[in-house]
Parts: sequence; C-alpha cells; structure tokens
Amino acid sequence: MPQYLSTRDADFEARFQALLSAKREDSPDVDQIVADIIADVRARGDAAVLELTARFDRLDMSADQIRFSDAEIDAACADVSPEDRDALELAAERIRAYHARQMPEDASWTDDVGAMLGWRWTPVSAAGLYVPGGLATYPSSVLMNAIPAKVAGVARLAMVVPTPDGAINPLVLMAARLSGVDEVYRIGGAQAVAALAYGTETIAPVDKITGPGNAFVAAAKRRVFGKVGIDMIAGPSEILVIADKDNDPDWIALDLLSQAEHDESAQSLLITDDADFGRAVADAVDKRLETLERRAIAGPSWRDFGAIITVADMAEAVVLSDRIAPEHLELCVADADALAGQVTHAGAIFIGGWTPEAIGDYIGGPNHVLPTARSARFSSGLSVMDFVKRTTLARMTPEALAAIGPSAARLAQSESLEAHGLSVLARLERLNRT
Amino acid sequence: MPQYLSTRDADFEARFQALLSAKREDSPDVDQIVADIIADVRARGDAAVLELTARFDRLDMSADQIRFSDAEIDAACADVSPEDRDALELAAERIRAYHARQMPEDASWTDDVGAMLGWRWTPVSAAGLYVPGGLATYPSSVLMNAIPAKVAGVARLAMVVPTPDGAINPLVLMAARLSGVDEVYRIGGAQAVAALAYGTETIAPVDKITGPGNAFVAAAKRRVFGKVGIDMIAGPSEILVIADKDNDPDWIALDLLSQAEHDESAQSLLITDDADFGRAVADAVDKRLETLERRAIAGPSWRDFGAIITVADMAEAVVLSDRIAPEHLELCVADADALAGQVTHAGAIFIGGWTPEAIGDYIGGPNHVLPTARSARFSSGLSVMDFVKRTTLARMTPEALAAIGPSAARLAQSESLEAHGLSVLARLERLNRT
Repeated sequence: MPQYLSTRDADFEARFQALLSAKREDSPDVDQIVADIIADVRARGDAAVLELTARFDRLDMSADQIRFSDAEIDAACADVSPEDRDALELAAERIRAYHARQMPEDASWTDDVGAMLGWRWTPVSAAGLYVPGGLATYPSSVLMNAIPAKVAGVARLAMVVPTPDGAINPLVLMAARLSGVDEVYRIGGAQAVAALAYGTETIAPVDKITGPGNAFVAAAKRRVFGKVGIDMIAGPSEILVIADKDNDPDWIALDLLSQAEHDESAQSLLITDDADFGRAVADAVDKRLETLERRAIAGPSWRDFGAIITVADMAEAVVLSDRIAPEHLELCVADADALAGQVTHAGAIFIGGWTPEAIGDYIGGPNHVLPTARSARFSSGLSVMDFVKRTTLARMTPEALAAIGPSAARLAQSESLEAHGLSVLARLERLNRT
Repeated sequence: MPQYLSTRDADFEARFQALLSAKREDSPDVDQIVADIIADVRARGDAAVLELTARFDRLDMSADQIRFSDAEIDAACADVSPEDRDALELAAERIRAYHARQMPEDASWTDDVGAMLGWRWTPVSAAGLYVPGGLATYPSSVLMNAIPAKVAGVARLAMVVPTPDGAINPLVLMAARLSGVDEVYRIGGAQAVAALAYGTETIAPVDKITGPGNAFVAAAKRRVFGKVGIDMIAGPSEILVIADKDNDPDWIALDLLSQAEHDESAQSLLITDDADFGRAVADAVDKRLETLERRAIAGPSWRDFGAIITVADMAEAVVLSDRIAPEHLELCVADADALAGQVTHAGAIFIGGWTPEAIGDYIGGPNHVLPTARSARFSSGLSVMDFVKRTTLARMTPEALAAIGPSAARLAQSESLEAHGLSVLARLERLNRT
C-alpha cells in the first residue's frame, strides 16, 4: 500500500520532507574494485579487457572479436521483425527531428568600441556510448543517446554493450545501425568504460562517455571524469502525476506502474485535488498488479516509495511539484497547458491525459535521459548540447584596445598581476608612439 | 629555460606527448578531512561553521556576523578609488552585454501527427558563488561568475568569501554589488561549500555552486555534487600562443608571462613557424623575468612547463593546437581570422596581435572561467547555460496518439515493459470504442 498524504494533515510537512529525502538506492562501494580494473586496462589494454570479460561475462574471445563485424550486425538486423524495425525507424526519425532543433547557433558581432566578439560551437570529436547488457538491454536507450551525438556532428561514435554468455539483443544492434553508431564492442562493466576513456590496441580513446549502467559503470564514469567528459550519473527513475477527478483511474494507474515496473527503487507519486479519485487510482493499481508481468518489481516500488497526495487545489500541486522537481511530470488536468506554464523544476512535462509518459520513453521525440533525484532543480536531460562545446572569440582593433585596455590594466594592477597589465600597456605604448 | 621542440626532430612525437601528459598539479588528499567538515556542518549548522572559521581563518565572530551587512558593503565600496570603480563598472557592463546574448530560447511546435513538442528554459532558483580569500582574491572572478547567474535570472545569489584575520579586499565587495549578488558571507573552505549545499540557520541552501577554490574547496564541491549542481573543477591555467615572426617578441613574452604569473603550475606554450622568432621571445621572457613582481611564480612555471615549438607551417600549428585543446589560444598571425576558423578545440580564442589574453581575463566580455587540462575537447567555459535548465514538453492529441502510440507499445513489448505498453493501449482502446 502506498502512503496517503494530505496537505490538510498536521504532520504533512514532516511526511512530505521524509518522502523527498527517502533514500531509495543503496550504492555498493565498488570504488576500489573499479580503480583496480581501470589501472589494469590502462596497463595491459586488450589483454586486461579480454580477461575481465571472460570472468564477468563468461565470454572467451580473442582481441579481433571484441568489435562486432559489419556481417554480425547485418545478421542481427535480419533477425529483427518488420514490425519492430518499423517501430524503431519511426522512433529514430522522431527523435532525430526533435533533437535537430536543439543545435545551438554560432554568433559574432562588432560592439561599440569596434571589438569583434562571439562564439562558435563544435562537436566533440569522438564519443562513447555505454549500453547495459543482460536483463535491461533497451534499444530505446541506444536511440536516445546515439542520435543526439550524431545530430551534434560527432564524427566517431563507439558503443560498448556487454554480451553475457555471448547473448545480444538484435534490436540493440538494429538501433545502433539506425542511429549511425560507427563501432560496436561486445564488452561492458568498468573495463569497457576504461577502454573508452584510455583506449586499448583495439579501441581508440573517446572524449566523452554517456549512457546508463550499474554501480560498477557509474563508479568507473566518476573515476574517468576529467580525462573524458561524462553525462549525469542517473539515479532510480521517478514520475509525478498531477490528476483531477476527470480521468480514468486505470489510465493513471498504468502511468504510475510504468515507472514502478522499471526498478524496485523507482518512485511513482500522484497528486490530486480529489481524495476519492486518489483511492480509485490506488484500487486500479492493485487490480493491475494482480496480473502485471513485472509485478515482482512494480509491487515493491509502489508499496515502498509510492504516494498519493491530496491537495486543496492545483496551485498547491504546482508548489509541491516544484519541491519534488520530478524527472517526469504528467499533467492530467483541465487546463494542462496553463499548469505546465507554472511549473519551474521538472525534467520533462507530459501535457494532458492523452500523453502517457511511455510516449516520451520511446517515440515522442524528446530525450528520455532525464535528471533524477531532484536534480531537475539544476540540470537538464540529455541533448545535442551534451555533444558540443563552445569556443569564445574576441578580436580587438588598436582602437578597441585603446578604448578598453586601460581599464583592463587597472584591474590587473588591483589584482597584483603585473604581466597581465604589461601585456596591454606594451601595446598601448606603441599606439601612443605613433 | 623552457623546452624547445621542433616537428622536424625525430623525437618530436614522444616529447610532445610528454608535454601533453605532464602532471602539473599535486592534489593533496584532503577528502577525509573534507568529508568530516561537511558532516559537521550538516549536523551542527552555524555552530560548526563558526568553529571552523575561528580555526582556519583565525576569525572569531557570532552567527549574526557571518553575513556582511549592507552597511559594511557600503563602507567597503566607499573605500574603492574612482578609477578602480570605473574599471569594474566598464568590465561588468561588457560582461553583461556579452552574456545577455547567450540566453537560450524556448521552442514549441506542432509536428506532422499533430503533437505539440518543445522545451522551456528556466533559471536555477538559488546559486552559490565561492570566492577565494587571502592572496588570490580576484574581483574579476566575482564578475565572471555572478553576472552570468544574474543574466540567467537566478533570483537568489549567495556569495561566500573567507576573510583570513578579518581581511577583505573592498574591490571584491564592490564587484559583488555591481553584479547583483544578494547575500555575502565571510566564510570559506569546505565549511562554506557545505553551508551553501545543505544550509545552516543563517544560510539557506542553494541549488548550484560555482567558483574556484583550493584543494579543500574542490574536494567539497565534488562531495556535494548531486545534492547540488557544480561547475567544473578547474586545474592550473594555460595558454598557447601561435605567432609568426611579424610580432614584437616582447608582446608575446608578456602574453606568455601573464599566464605563468598565475601559478607555478601554469603552462605557457608558444608555437611558431620561425625558430629565430622563438628564441627572440625566450630572450624577451628572460629579460622581463628580471624585474617582474611575480617572478618567483612566473619563473618556475616557465622553466618547468613552458615550451617553444617550431613548426613547418601554420597548418601544422593548428593540428598541434587541437591536440593540446588549450584553455586560452592566442593567434598572432597574418590571417588570424582564417586560422581561428580552422581550430576545433579551445576554450577561448584571442584573434590577432592586438588581443592580448589579459583582455579576456577582465574586460573583453567573454567569460574567463574556461576548460583546463585538455577538457576543451568536451566542455565549455562558464556561461548563462550553467544557470538555466531545460524542461522538455510534449502534448499528444488523440489523433497523434493513434498515429504513433502503436509503435511505442511495440517497443515497450520488445523491452518487456508491459505497463508502458498498456498505458498507451488503454488509451487507444478508448479511441477504438468511439
């Protein structure tokens, strides 16, 4: 049974705080193991990667088998049903169209003193994409990570995916091909992250690594950060649905369960202005849980971290929502557009009852890699921006330097940085002499 | 004496690699000390902050003195000379004008199936700015961090600056006032970072912390990351000057020294297509080092990490520059604009001999917080983007869901996420019934 809270209760604030700060994840401390793995891969390259893959993935191979050949990918793609292929293609096309609009623009202008100022965006040269293997191999994650990189113009996109006992989901390779991934390697874990960051005889190093993974992968990404860029370290997924009574309780129940079925640590929250509707949704969840395939995961998630919060009105709902800063926010209310406009902190908003969150996971267009654990207060979902970087530009003319240089020299002096000031003054002296 | 390299030498590649991978910084391992300080501040709030400030900054005060009063800031501003004030005001104005152009735009559109898609940018609600105290108190750093936050629309900007023995640089408080900083606290070190991240009785918590600091501050920022956002952890500064022989060797020498004087770990590199010019610059550096105020810092930096690289032509220079991915790149060559257009990896480019890097440190307009240690390959300097976050938006109509929902359901099935599929199918069933 989920928790029931109401803003009318005297203990609401304390219980809401507890809900916000609930620790939903126990990260095992694997940092030393990961440090050793990275050092081993740096020292021994392919040999270390092969040994670790044999040990963890029970897969014996030689160095020339680390990379999937084109023929292997062709064969896997041929195994994909036409229906699955069509669905992946539609998803890829819609994700590409959405992300193409995110490309930032270069700028340059001449200001009032005649200085040219501006900036230029360039893609990261090489990126690595981590794709989990085994149970949670999601072709949709390949699309969501790879397409923004390719839209950004990343020339070389290398993907790693572990294949425990040699098993691979053909849809994952199909998604890689549709996204334009350039290289696919059958390795995973911290050893794959180390290989991407530092390179081996077989794998050239990349500049940035993105993609989800288990505790070992997360620890490895933290460790190689600085040598390469990384995306966020994602926590367990979460959804907040704000719904009024004019909704089908079963629809809302399914939306809550589609988050809960990801992970026992996932969190599904409902805010409603109608307590009876809240109870009807809870009943619908229970009914669906009787038959849901992943009830062994969704059940504990809903029981341990689910909550139904009754509020006086939707204004109150927005205030609570911003405090939660949810990864996914679904607005099933009368004027959903207006409510969306009032929200400040959320990774993604799904507006209106015809927009179940699952649409965003697969095919809507926006990215499904989103800030978790309240980090939507200060960060954004994955986008083209994660694969580009900005170089700022400045060009002074002698006149521009004459206009603003003396102030720079003055500030340099105030900071006791004499050479800074002299580098400006030496040039100004030449101007004064002529 | 700096190193001399030439691309013509047989051992060039090995020596260039050594230059790229030279470890310029020894970070003391302060992680456990910092963990204890953060835990103490979380547990005891102001009391812990006051004790630690008494111990590390030799400053005894009560909780109500932690924050600078308006009267204290007024008094400090009155101490600033009119010349310094004018210089700071011009810098603030130019930095504000540059960053105002960085504000990203919201977008929304209706696609071919009738779905509304888009995104909206919102500012971080509260940001904290760390400003180092003591020797390296740079008012320019206050401007460079605070102005982008305020341009982004951050409502609450809290600044911390340690005041060892009670000493404060009035220019730092003046810069805070000019930038619109809302609160200034006279604390520093890991305890200040902890106070900003978790809050105390006196200091409300923030959502994002930026600004440079020593090893303790850097370790504290790493530790609170996740609870709050942080900017990059900057390494020692560096400059690469590409110059042909038609330059005054003394100008180039001063540009190299203006980096070297920051820090013994700073790195100043010159690439030129004229070996004689390279030697002339080295002579000019030596001459300036005889009298430079900070020669005890700039000398060792130039001796230990400086290098002069001779290349066959400017095309070779650009290739090397991209491998270095310098924080600051100065192009003092005939067609500097064209060369700038060929560069892929650099934090900031200073184009032409009339644009000494020091202009960018103070008054050009672009930010001086830039990616160090080759991270320009995958990251950008500080900007308005660091203080905003994007919420993606999607709204389906029944028709849009009918068009793309089946593909989402198909993909959900392929990923064995039944509730995801059902959340779409339940809605499609309603459509089919009507």
